Order: sequence, then C-alpha cells, then structure tokens
Amino acid sequence: MLQPPPAEPGMPEDEIDTPALVLDLDAFEANLDRMAALLEGTGVRLRAHAKTHKSPVIARLQMQRGAVGQCVQKVAEAEVLAWGGIPDILVSNQVVGARKLARLAALQRISHVAVCVDGPEQVAALEAAAAAADTRITVLVEIDCGASRCGVEAGPPTVALAQRIAASPHLIFGGLQSYHGSAQHIRAPEGRAAAIAHAVELTRRSVEQLAQQGLSCAIVGGGGTGTFRNEVASGVYTEIQAGSYAFMDADYARNAEPPPFRHALFVLSTVMSRAIPGIAVLDAGHKAVAIDSGLPLVHGRPGLRYAGASDEHGKLLVEDGAPPALGEKLRLVPGHCDPTIDRYDWYVGVRGGRVECLWPVGSRGAMA
Amino acid sequence: MLQPPPAEPGMPEDEIDTPALVLDLDAFEANLDRMAALLEGTGVRLRAHAKTHKSPVIARLQMQRGAVGQCVQKVAEAEVLAWGGIPDILVSNQVVGARKLARLAALQRISHVAVCVDGPEQVAALEAAAAAADTRITVLVEIDCGASRCGVEAGPPTVALAQRIAASPHLIFGGLQSYHGSAQHIRAPEGRAAAIAHAVELTRRSVEQLAQQGLSCAIVGGGGTGTFRNEVASGVYTEIQAGSYAFMDADYARNAEPPPFRHALFVLSTVMSRAIPGIAVLDAGHKAVAIDSGLPLVHGRPGLRYAGASDEHGKLLVEDGAPPALGEKLRLVPGHCDPTIDRYDWYVGVRGGRVECLWPVGSRGAMA
Repeated sequence: MLQPPPAEPGMPEDEIDTPALVLDLDAFEANLDRMAALLEGTGVRLRAHAKTHKSPVIARLQMQRGAVGQCVQKVAEAEVLAWGGIPDILVSNQVVGARKLARLAALQRISHVAVCVDGPEQVAALEAAAAAADTRITVLVEIDCGASRCGVEAGPPTVALAQRIAASPHLIFGGLQSYHGSAQHIRAPEGRAAAIAHAVELTRRSVEQLAQQGLSCAIVGGGGTGTFRNEVASGVYTEIQAGSYAFMDADYARNAEPPPFRHALFVLSTVMSRAIPGIAVLDAGHKAVAIDSGLPLVHGRPGLRYAGASDEHGKLLVEDGAPPALGEKLRLVPGHCDPTIDRYDWYVGVRGGRVECLWPVGSRGAMA
Repeated sequence: MLQPPPAEPGMPEDEIDTPALVLDLDAFEANLDRMAALLEGTGVRLRAHAKTHKSPVIARLQMQRGAVGQCVQKVAEAEVLAWGGIPDILVSNQVVGARKLARLAALQRISHVAVCVDGPEQVAALEAAAAAADTRITVLVEIDCGASRCGVEAGPPTVALAQRIAASPHLIFGGLQSYHGSAQHIRAPEGRAAAIAHAVELTRRSVEQLAQQGLSCAIVGGGGTGTFRNEVASGVYTEIQAGSYAFMDADYARNAEPPPFRHALFVLSTVMSRAIPGIAVLDAGHKAVAIDSGLPLVHGRPGLRYAGASDEHGKLLVEDGAPPALGEKLRLVPGHCDPTIDRYDWYVGVRGGRVECLWPVGSRGAMA
C-alpha cells in the first residue's frame, strides 16, 4: 500500500506529520545550480544518478539545468524514469535474467536506455533480448577501476568485450563505465585524488586501446559526489554521475574538504517520549533514517545527539542546553541519503517554513 | 508507486524475479505451531508483534493458532490491520500529535485499538482526542523496565499515571506495557534471564501497587523472541509480544541457546557479476536486506560469505568450493527481519520449490 502524503501544500512545516522526508527547496535548488556552475565550460556532462533521488520530477529539474540524462542501478528504476518522460538513461550496472532483459529491451520504444556489462555471457543475453524485441541496445563496458566489485579488467579484456558488443547487429558499443564507489568516502582529499588518479590511468589506457581498434567511447562515465572534481579534471571522463550532491548527507559532510553543497534533505521527526531525564525519544528509528553510514545528526541543535536507533525509536541524548519538548519537531540530517529516501513514498518540499510541494518518490522500492 | 509482484503462483522458485522477499511456508507454519505449543497451558497469551510482519494475512494466521491480537508501533500500522479485519490491536508505543491521535480515535469504530503512555501530557491529549471522537480508548502505562528508552518509572509514578487514566471518562486503564527490547539480543541465556528477572521485579511491584489502589491490569505485556520464555515463567506477565519468531533472522540465531524456530524468511537474490576471481556480486545490497544487526548469511552454501553491502550490490567472497554461476539465485538469511520486510511490497510464499501465494506487505513504510 502506498502511504498517504504527510502534508499538504501551504501547511506550516511544523504541521507536517512525522516521520517525513523534507526537502529544503532553497538549499536543494542552490545545490543543483552549484553543480551546473562547477561543470560549465569543462566540457564534462552531468548524468545525475537517480539511485539517490528516485524521482522523475527531480530528474527533470536536473536536466533543466543542463544534465544530459540520468543514471539508475535497476531496470525498475529505469522504467519509472522512462514512464516519467526522461529520454536518456544509463543503467550503470549489470542486468542479469531474461525477464529483466526483456523489460529493458521493451523500454527502448519510449526512451534511450543503455546498460553495462562486465562479461561475455551478459553480452550474449542482451543480444538475444534485443533481437527478440527487434531493437538495438547501447551497451557500455564496466571496468574495475579500483573498487573490486563489478567490472572487467582494464586494457585488453575490456577491448575484447567491447569488440563483442560492436560485432552484434542488435547492440551498440556505448563506451566505458568506470566508477570508483569506495573512493567517494575516503576522508582525506589526497586519498580520494590518489584513488581517482589510478582509476583515470586504467580508464585512459582502455580508451586508447579501444581507439586503436577503431572503437570510440561516446560515454566515459564515473565520478560521484566525493570525487567528481577529480574526474572532471582528468581529461578522460566525459560524464560524471553524482547523485548525493543534490541533498548532501552527514557522511559526505564528514569528508575533509567536503563537497560544496548544502544539507537540503532532512527527516522531520517528533519527540514522542520525555519520560527519562536527559533523554528524548524521537519517532524516527532506522526504519525511518538509514544508519549504514552512521547515525543522523540533529540539525541546528548542537546540544542534542542522536545516540541510538532502534526500529521505530531514535534515542537523543541531551548533552547541552534545554531538552526538546514533548511533541517538538526536529530535523535530522541522514547519515546516508540514498537508502533514507528509499524508505519514503513522498518528498515534502518546504520553503520559508511552509510546504510548497509534494513529489512522489517514484521508484521507491524499485529493486528488480 | 507500488512495485509489481516478483512472481506468480505456480511458478518454480528459480523463476522469481529478484531481489524478492521469500517465505518458506513449511518453516513459517512450523514456527507458528511451535509458539502455540510452547504457550499451551501456560495461561499466557500471545499478542504477536506486527511491526515485524506488517501483514493482516499473517496476523490472521497467528490468531487462527490462538494469538489474542496484535501489537504495532505506529498508528499507520494499526490502520492497516484494522482495515484488514483484525479486531484487537495494541499500539505498544507512545503516540504524539493531534493528527495521529484523531486517527487513533477514529479507528475505535472498527477495531479495539489500545495505546501506551509514559507521561501525563500524553494522557491529556488522548483524552481530548477520545472526547472529540465521542469514543473511549484503552490506555496502558509503559514502564521503563531496564532499556532506558521510553517508559515511566515503575512503582508510584506508574500508579499516579494509571490513576490519571482511570479518572478520565473517555479513557480505560488497560494495564502495563513492560518490554525490554535490548534484552532480546543479549547473547548468553543467563544474561537475558537476569535482565528479565529485573524487569519482572519492577513489573510485579507495579502490579501490586496498582492493585492496592483498586486498579487491575487486563494486560501485562512484554517479551520478545529472545526472552519470551522468561516472561511466560514469571507469573506476572499475561501477554507476550514476540514477532520475529515467525521468521527467525540471523541475529536471533546468534544467541547462545537460540529460540526454537526455523529460518523461514529469505531474500532471494541473483548473481549479477562474476568478473573478478573469488568474488560474486549479488543484486541485493542494503536497500534489499537490512544490515543494522549484521550482514546476511548465504543459506545452505557454507563456502560463500556475504562480506559487504553497498546500496544495490552484495559482495560475496568464495571461501570454499565452487563459485556460484552468473545468474544463479541464492537465498540470504537477513541479519534482521523487521526492517528487511519493510523494504518490500510483497511476500512470495514458496513450498516444495514452487510459488504458492503472494501476500502484500500491507503496512510497508507505515511510519506515521
């Protein structure tokens, strides 16, 4: 069952039912504008990652500011964006299984949806699905640029896989996917720079070897909110895939030299118990705010520390100043925005203390 | 948007689209039967916790085996159960805010929905909501029996709060909520026993002091999957509130002397990359399986270890034996069943290798 919206446009922020996913529209728009300004004149395009926001509405706002398209991780996410009118999508991931591949092929009728591979079996299965649907699918080769998760080895194995794609009448070789996920969260900027320098070197070599075989890369993609300035400066990447920049979470803010974006996304929660001195209990536990990258921060209330999350309770320690009142509403900055957003059906957009809009989290739960 | 079901009845398990929430119906029914057998003749009732299963279907199966009702944590969960025909529900939690209280009062027309308080402001707000809806609401006093989260102090403060409830024409004093959440996960049985012995003592004293004031407790509730045998043996508790027993997760299985239930709940996932030797990557990361209580276990494949979860990827290390094939489907035992279930729209019930039923996760995302 879809959950009902927790607010209505025009309502004061303080009347939003909680827990709710609140988007500070001024900060959010400033983040979108800031990214557009950072990329202007670099020749590097933004293909923002919709695994973070899961919303065709937000995708369109990014594209109005120059983003060339969107990334997703799952076919079900691509479907929601395509149905919502987004014309250019990259599944920055492998897709395995005949049912999923048939859906991916069917989507080509209404959008351009590219996908990644890291092995020859995936190429064969994609070719069969594209042929069955009488369509052509653009396929990128994902290379392992340092994260040791998915991705074929750079250099000759990458070239061999690209050649298999290019040889298929139903597939189009679209370039390289070279994203270093774990580098995003290395705290020191020089550590992030070193990891991306290594990724750039592997990517550059692969691009050159592909060119020697007559294969050009329409997309050389990668780069997230933690490292995109390194990929932009590389001269190799043509697209960056940042997602969290639109919202900024507590984890990215902990990077030394954090990215130049504002906290725009909050979980609004209510104090529901004050029975024990020194403790206030919130109605937002880890079903309401993801804790995989650390506990949330209480926004604008330095004396309050969110010290423990159970399923439906958040335990605040009152470390300094006055305790919050029973019923008081507090903004939490999530430790990690992507999985937090995925727990909600609605964004509540606020500006100047009032609810301005409600947007569905269109691909909430879209894992398949 | 609701996600489409990942399977159809009659389909072989291997054709279920992934990630999917799979319920082994034989194990699940055995767990329900086992709990009913354990409670038979004890005089202690089961009010199973629907914060775990979030399903009116499962609630009814529990009640067919003798459960007297259900617990929930949120009004939105109570609504889904009441709309699904469950006649006796306890919100084992505080409810704060006029909109939520109005919904709670309105529900009394179709179900009996009790609620907990741990302070006088909550009593006053409940009284106003019940009066406005021209109904009566049953209210339990939650006591802090050792977890230091919610709950008023046992003894005289508990009696004072109960007297305020009993004095209201719109409220009915319903008894005590005395649940020790953190005790459920103490590894050693003697540690759990000691924690519950302390909770029992605080509860017994409060029940006695209430009786001296002429207040009897229709419900003395608490006890989860990790400790319920202690509460049952106490002679004080009248109801236990176990939820996870129906499914059993990896965390409860790590208790020394784990509860006598079988793993019945799995996340079915697909191997989507085998590009790097010694590693297999699954399509189920922490958006698909909760990791707040530890990583999932690969069921029935001891040589495979789920070693890392990112948003959409699970990284398996092949520690012994043959690696899984690309496209192979593996069952994961979640570290924690409650928040894992909350990420899905559908249960896929399987028996003998085939899909037998699809049940909605009715209160998925019901946080308000």
